[in-house]
Amino acid sequence: MKKSLLALAVLGAFAGAASAQSSVTVYGIVDMGITSQDTGAGANDRLNGVTSGNQSASRIGFKGTEDLGNGLKANFVLEQTIAADTGVLSQVDGKTAFNRFATVGLSGNFGAVNLGRQVSAIKDAYDAIDPFGDGGTIAPISAIFFNAALKGDNGRISNSIKYTSNSYSGFKFGAHYAFGEQAGRTGADSNYGLNLGYANGPLNVQFGYMSGDDSTAGAPGFKPVKNSKDKMTFLGATYDFGVAKLHAAYGDSKNQPVAGNVDNKYRNYMLGVSAKVGAAGSIMASYTVNDTRTFGGVKANDRDSKRAGIMYAHDLSKRTNLYAGYSHTSNDKNAKLNALVADQSGSMFAVGVRHKF
Amino acid sequence: MKKSLLALAVLGAFAGAASAQSSVTVYGIVDMGITSQDTGAGANDRLNGVTSGNQSASRIGFKGTEDLGNGLKANFVLEQTIAADTGVLSQVDGKTAFNRFATVGLSGNFGAVNLGRQVSAIKDAYDAIDPFGDGGTIAPISAIFFNAALKGDNGRISNSIKYTSNSYSGFKFGAHYAFGEQAGRTGADSNYGLNLGYANGPLNVQFGYMSGDDSTAGAPGFKPVKNSKDKMTFLGATYDFGVAKLHAAYGDSKNQPVAGNVDNKYRNYMLGVSAKVGAAGSIMASYTVNDTRTFGGVKANDRDSKRAGIMYAHDLSKRTNLYAGYSHTSNDKNAKLNALVADQSGSMFAVGVRHKF
Amino acid sequence: MKKSLLALAVLGAFAGAASAQSSVTVYGIVDMGITSQDTGAGANDRLNGVTSGNQSASRIGFKGTEDLGNGLKANFVLEQTIAADTGVLSQVDGKTAFNRFATVGLSGNFGAVNLGRQVSAIKDAYDAIDPFGDGGTIAPISAIFFNAALKGDNGRISNSIKYTSNSYSGFKFGAHYAFGEQAGRTGADSNYGLNLGYANGPLNVQFGYMSGDDSTAGAPGFKPVKNSKDKMTFLGATYDFGVAKLHAAYGDSKNQPVAGNVDNKYRNYMLGVSAKVGAAGSIMASYTVNDTRTFGGVKANDRDSKRAGIMYAHDLSKRTNLYAGYSHTSNDKNAKLNALVADQSGSMFAVGVRHKF
Repeated sequence: MKKSLLALAVLGAFAGAASAQSSVTVYGIVDMGITSQDTGAGANDRLNGVTSGNQSASRIGFKGTEDLGNGLKANFVLEQTIAADTGVLSQVDGKTAFNRFATVGLSGNFGAVNLGRQVSAIKDAYDAIDPFGDGGTIAPISAIFFNAALKGDNGRISNSIKYTSNSYSGFKFGAHYAFGEQAGRTGADSNYGLNLGYANGPLNVQFGYMSGDDSTAGAPGFKPVKNSKDKMTFLGATYDFGVAKLHAAYGDSKNQPVAGNVDNKYRNYMLGVSAKVGAAGSIMASYTVNDTRTFGGVKANDRDSKRAGIMYAHDLSKRTNLYAGYSHTSNDKNAKLNALVADQSGSMFAVGVRHKF
Repeated sequence: MKKSLLALAVLGAFAGAASAQSSVTVYGIVDMGITSQDTGAGANDRLNGVTSGNQSASRIGFKGTEDLGNGLKANFVLEQTIAADTGVLSQVDGKTAFNRFATVGLSGNFGAVNLGRQVSAIKDAYDAIDPFGDGGTIAPISAIFFNAALKGDNGRISNSIKYTSNSYSGFKFGAHYAFGEQAGRTGADSNYGLNLGYANGPLNVQFGYMSGDDSTAGAPGFKPVKNSKDKMTFLGATYDFGVAKLHAAYGDSKNQPVAGNVDNKYRNYMLGVSAKVGAAGSIMASYTVNDTRTFGGVKANDRDSKRAGIMYAHDLSKRTNLYAGYSHTSNDKNAKLNALVADQSGSMFAVGVRHKF
Repeated sequence: MKKSLLALAVLGAFAGAASAQSSVTVYGIVDMGITSQDTGAGANDRLNGVTSGNQSASRIGFKGTEDLGNGLKANFVLEQTIAADTGVLSQVDGKTAFNRFATVGLSGNFGAVNLGRQVSAIKDAYDAIDPFGDGGTIAPISAIFFNAALKGDNGRISNSIKYTSNSYSGFKFGAHYAFGEQAGRTGADSNYGLNLGYANGPLNVQFGYMSGDDSTAGAPGFKPVKNSKDKMTFLGATYDFGVAKLHAAYGDSKNQPVAGNVDNKYRNYMLGVSAKVGAAGSIMASYTVNDTRTFGGVKANDRDSKRAGIMYAHDLSKRTNLYAGYSHTSNDKNAKLNALVADQSGSMFAVGVRHKF
């Protein structure tokens, strides 16, 4: 019995030392593959290489949760993207930064409130519906939905406060406000958004909205014209039929380019599917459309973009998988929405490995 | 008993694995709040936002200590500031850096010697007296004491060697030398400093001194005029009356702006108080004065700055607290010492959360 | 017995929590010393300071290995250099980066395959022969062997795939290919390399080769002239006589400067020794020669460089040592190979501490 007590004493001492450490979890993803792209730049435009983040953005993060008692918790997250093929770390405002998350906040029975740099409320909604939910480069919703100028910095917002509810009978909602931080002009450069979701059994429905104002050109983030408002609306759903899950989404957005004073209006559609294949495989595919309705204030012609993408992932473990993905993008002759392809068709093929740590 | 031995054996194996990890501690602070500033820029100058580091600078660090036997230890620290509201990491010389600490050294019966980038000896002295000891943005001594041009990079020095003594009957002292690293001009751009402290019972007295030379303009750090010397002297004390602790400090400094060849002379004063309020609360307040004696070599008129600040912190745990702080700064009509306010009065209100990990 | 079971249960719970953490190891080196250099810039060129990485580059890294079963493992490494004297982190392509390693890959019975940024195959070969194997600044092979313009970014390559074999009866080999990632010009800017080693008892022989192509100027990495090929060949060996280990190496390289279209050819020689001195000491020394054979396409005159270096390291533990090192470099009157010294002789003396964590 003395030995048992000794064991407990040693355990106690050790657990104490370890809990001093346990306040931080170092985590992340390294995802790289061999890729071959038809960049759409012309006759001789094949680009082969090693690229990072084909299935999920490579990243490193530091996070922790402290139990404050009575269900209250303090939380922090610091997370940044890595272009792992060159090792380069991501930037915000031209400086190396925890570009994905830099937050502190409290959570509990009331939900969670976080301050800092984080995901916009509408991005939470569309990521939950996207078959390529973790993003990546093959065919994420965010590559086609909502003009990049409108979305700001990949759907991530600085200087923000965000509320996320707990789930009530399957319902969950969230809202954010991001300060524009322009002296004497409260509201300038600011944006806000919200989401409302319902997840129950096989059904998951997500609604999101975001609106931004801008009175200053050149600043990072959400950048419409002076005194204008940008708006994005998202509605999507998934339904799990057992053998496969169906994904569908609709987006509607309006923005004004900095140089003009007239609206651009877009409608976006996505139809997708995801399914388990055997014990270790999974497949995801989507067809995404950007329908440009109005450009420069007049009815748009030949400004649509379409992307079809498919990926197969084969698990080697819960943390590690191999993947192969392919996407084909076609732009109308006046469409330049996608950075990969200007006015032409293009494609991308990737085979690689994703490791979570 | 066999089971106990097994427990110990498992423990041993596990402790071994853990000790392979235990050479590094990942630690830091994320501190953010909602702030509203009267920036003093004119009639319409209110700046609202989310700001980082109101009570203590947000930061992430990696540190470790190795026991070398006979009381000797090897130590390292790598620590950097985070502008958590945008996620941006701090820079030194225009590049992302462990701007707070990048040191390696030995410690033991003789005290501690560290090489690299670290806190200047005089900063150790004034941080120990400041009611807002952890810095932050409300009313730290460093915002008023010692003209920013004189202090160099927030009191942090590169290319340095620093000695810190152990405590002898309450007495403790330290000294640093930072190389200027100008080829063929030993001493150019260099600086040195020292501190002497006495802490015993309710009394803590701190003295600090720093002197810097510069022969090259434009370099980082301590930047007076060619062949000139900059000097800072600090004397401060705290006395704990039980119900509250009284803080008082005096500073005297001299520098020469790069464009001129004539002295600027300053005297600084601080009177402060800190106290526990109930089981979980603490309050800290100070009144800080910069008295510009000589500017451009002639007697200074209307060049004084004053700041009054107060903060209340409410502990949710040992590691997490909420806070509310307010400061008011008034500059004489020719005073531009404080970056926040030029030639006018201003104020800052912040309410937020600080989480240590 | 109940207490023992409790101990095991607590252990189990705790081990579970810990193993969730165990997928990442945070590691690194902080190495700094006081240095005095004769920079060779003229009569008054002494440079004293605190420098980082005299014995081994200061660095911080994150790595992990996951056992996938059947001997298969998933591995990742993220590692960057720190100029610890100022805290500044290293850059790739002008941005802060994991400049040393950013890899993900699989290993097993077949060897290891890794994607991303990593060490070139030829660098593996010369690092294994160099008495100053960890690099540093005193007298590493890489300071003299293979013109810096030819080697690319310190022997580290981006956008690469690399294979490393396991050991077969002492034989081991490796090969890499780094994509140039120039659209429509596969092979442009690319490079490849290989190594073959034999280590058995006292003998270690290493052969390495690297070839690079470049059609674009200004890009990072391996940069010869349009349509030209750069080539490096390395052969080296060590033999352990027990009392001391002898090191010898030969290098042959050819490149073309960007501005010209004519060959530069070099031959390099290294003779070195390393030995244990007592229980805690070790000594390493080398004499390295760059023999410029052809410069700008014509026979080279007075373009040779020679460096003699010696270092003594005294272990305080397995992880921490003190060191003193000295090197002397002499350049022929037209030689500018070494960044430290242009057209003249120079020297460097360093005394410091290296701590591994």
